[in-house]
Amino acid sequence: MVGSPVVNMYPLSSYTFGTKEPKMEKDTSVADRLARMKVNYMKEGMRTSVEGILLVQEHRHPHILLLQIGNTFCKLPGGRLKPGENEIEGLKRKLSSKLGANSLSLQPDWQIGECAAIWWRPNFETVMYPYCPPHITKPKECKKLFIVHLSEREYFAVPKNLKLLAVPLFELYDNVHRYGPVISTIPQQLSRFTR
Amino acid sequence: MVGSPVVNMYPLSSYTFGTKEPKMEKDTSVADRLARMKVNYMKEGMRTSVEGILLVQEHRHPHILLLQIGNTFCKLPGGRLKPGENEIEGLKRKLSSKLGANSLSLQPDWQIGECAAIWWRPNFETVMYPYCPPHITKPKECKKLFIVHLSEREYFAVPKNLKLLAVPLFELYDNVHRYGPVISTIPQQLSRFTR
Repeated sequence: MVGSPVVNMYPLSSYTFGTKEPKMEKDTSVADRLARMKVNYMKEGMRTSVEGILLVQEHRHPHILLLQIGNTFCKLPGGRLKPGENEIEGLKRKLSSKLGANSLSLQPDWQIGECAAIWWRPNFETVMYPYCPPHITKPKECKKLFIVHLSEREYFAVPKNLKLLAVPLFELYDNVHRYGPVISTIPQQLSRFTR
Repeated sequence: MVGSPVVNMYPLSSYTFGTKEPKMEKDTSVADRLARMKVNYMKEGMRTSVEGILLVQEHRHPHILLLQIGNTFCKLPGGRLKPGENEIEGLKRKLSSKLGANSLSLQPDWQIGECAAIWWRPNFETVMYPYCPPHITKPKECKKLFIVHLSEREYFAVPKNLKLLAVPLFELYDNVHRYGPVISTIPQQLSRFTR
């Protein structure tokens, strides 16, 4: 029996936010994205992507930091690993690219914690599952979500084309319509943590 | 960074199932159940309940053991702790009551593992959340789900009025309509485990 894992959470107001140059999406449509995924799969095999769950406290309730693209689509900070890249190092690289200042001395000291969930993409389609479905021997993507333990004070530099939102758990919960299956069930995955 | 936790899973066929005397539900309706909850809350304060996630393998896919009452309602084995009772000991007691043989020598050696999720009931109502909602200072119930690490061979005695089902993760996933929010999101909570 393992004791209850702990996530420290600090008020949103203890963080500082600036901007940096835009980070454009590589694809302009879902079809483009799936087509690029297919090409990369032919070259490199299954895609592994890593994403960070960054928690802050606001009005005495946990909030998750999400990057908003345009007016509706939200995603966790993270991205695709290079072939052979270590998951933890890759996630740190992606977090710095998405949220770190350009100056190395201002980069957050990313503390990557527990894996919260793993999702599988069986085909070159948008649908993913929290297990590799039976009879699927060659999944196309494995996406891992990790808790990121933030320090009490940090500076985040947000690409100018994106917005960084702190979204409360009660807004994510049971809201698959707005946030999709991966993000909308993060509250369940976090429930086991003592905060 | 902690390594990936492991759940051992053995084929359903390696377990033996028998029956024992019926374990009737204490309440015959949801209204009765909530009324009894209210009476107990007045006497003992917040209810803490514990439930076990028991995993078996079938057709190379993980299945969860659920107790079926009547033709539709399914629940995890477990139940309410006595006031002051230890969570792990209480869950063992409940698992033995629901699934253990009457003979002590045939009782499974319950190995209670990681907490998978925690759900809160803010009011004397059926709805629960995977967090204590803001502004709720006196939740009425806290329900904890634990992984139960089964041995390779066990004998389960199922109360005659209940059916024990092995339900595949792909049947539970995204099936809140049939299994409710607590059970239908167990696949996400299990996804981080290496099996």
